[in-house]
Amino acid sequence: MADKKTIIVFSGDMDKVMASFIIANGAAAMGSEVTMFFTFWGLNVLRKAQKIKVKKDFMEKMFGWMMPRGAEKLGLSKMNFGGMGAVMMKQIMKKKNVNSLPELIESAQAMGVRMIACTMSMDVMGIKEEELIDGIEFAGVATYLGESDEANVNLFI
Amino acid sequence: MADKKTIIVFSGDMDKVMASFIIANGAAAMGSEVTMFFTFWGLNVLRKAQKIKVKKDFMEKMFGWMMPRGAEKLGLSKMNFGGMGAVMMKQIMKKKNVNSLPELIESAQAMGVRMIACTMSMDVMGIKEEELIDGIEFAGVATYLGESDEANVNLFI
Amino acid sequence: MADKKTIIVFSGDMDKVMASFIIANGAAAMGSEVTMFFTFWGLNVLRKAQKIKVKKDFMEKMFGWMMPRGAEKLGLSKMNFGGMGAVMMKQIMKKKNVNSLPELIESAQAMGVRMIACTMSMDVMGIKEEELIDGIEFAGVATYLGESDEANVNLFI
Repeated sequence: MADKKTIIVFSGDMDKVMASFIIANGAAAMGSEVTMFFTFWGLNVLRKAQKIKVKKDFMEKMFGWMMPRGAEKLGLSKMNFGGMGAVMMKQIMKKKNVNSLPELIESAQAMGVRMIACTMSMDVMGIKEEELIDGIEFAGVATYLGESDEANVNLFI
Repeated sequence: MADKKTIIVFSGDMDKVMASFIIANGAAAMGSEVTMFFTFWGLNVLRKAQKIKVKKDFMEKMFGWMMPRGAEKLGLSKMNFGGMGAVMMKQIMKKKNVNSLPELIESAQAMGVRMIACTMSMDVMGIKEEELIDGIEFAGVATYLGESDEANVNLFI
Repeated sequence: MADKKTIIVFSGDMDKVMASFIIANGAAAMGSEVTMFFTFWGLNVLRKAQKIKVKKDFMEKMFGWMMPRGAEKLGLSKMNFGGMGAVMMKQIMKKKNVNSLPELIESAQAMGVRMIACTMSMDVMGIKEEELIDGIEFAGVATYLGESDEANVNLFI
């Protein structure tokens, strides 16, 4: 099985993002070329945890301040209770020896899963390249469409 | 690249619907046949902005009154703050010269993207053909399945 | 049309789950092999309505108590109003002679749609096999990837 897979990670919810990486890593482990395309809220997954000094206008600052900074900070799509749900979920996963989201991202990168940040969403949300983790590519919808055209599994999450 | 693409637009959230049209228009621009299938909340994208006089029972009236009437009225899936988030997002997009959702819909129609409204959801939600914008086709799940069967990219948004 | 279809049912929202089964049943009726893979919140769709006596730790008990027990208990992804929306939706569907979710699940099983519960999510959420309805298979992401690789339509809902 060497077919390509693509996943659009639109969601910034911890549970949906975890599902994305579990699928991506599983496919990569089975020998597939996997491309993950991060757009809109999904960009938050790729943000560095620490604040990076970049020039932003008022709106961009506000967005940057309101959106979670990185995989550790994401909430659940349901039963989040202001972050409590996400904390509980992490504790349970740890107890059950399920890889955490940061671990999943690390192994995805180690297995050569391509991670592309959508430049158009970055522009709209005012997220700069320096604010995202290393090893990310930057491209637009045409790149996604080219990849998905060669893939036999294309998911929007 | 002349392969078909299909997108089920289930969501009525401005951000997800925009993603749908950005993908659809990109694919159409690259020469693909694209079919968008609007169902459930996604039907609201296709509603005319003005109130159309049609016979509805009480439940249908209530639904029609509670759901956003058209692309201009959609909210964000996150950080909507009772519509303020959507307004802000539109301002940012305008400032960044990103096409608005109504513009994306217009260009989709101009490029021949097929837009199909799910008749079963229309029936359940009490939305009548006259309430939807022009140029829409009406069909059920069998039509979607036929299209997706011939497509190499099928997304559910 | 004998091509395979796969649907990941991640959502536990009544409306999205209904969409999943309407697509699955339509495809099965048209002669496709359909595999539905239930994960995260989607597992709640498969829970038996009655409480089943199983050993659970505190967190698992809490999750089990907070999450809807079965297809009858699911809420809408929008306008749920603490369950009122879901009740209204069911009334409307009944009036319009649209199959209820339990009926859709029954016919899916009758048509041989494969329903797989994600064992990893079951472990994380503390859901035991005895708590799920009959006729369900149990497997992980590798099984999903194998199926999706042979399918020409793969959706994440």
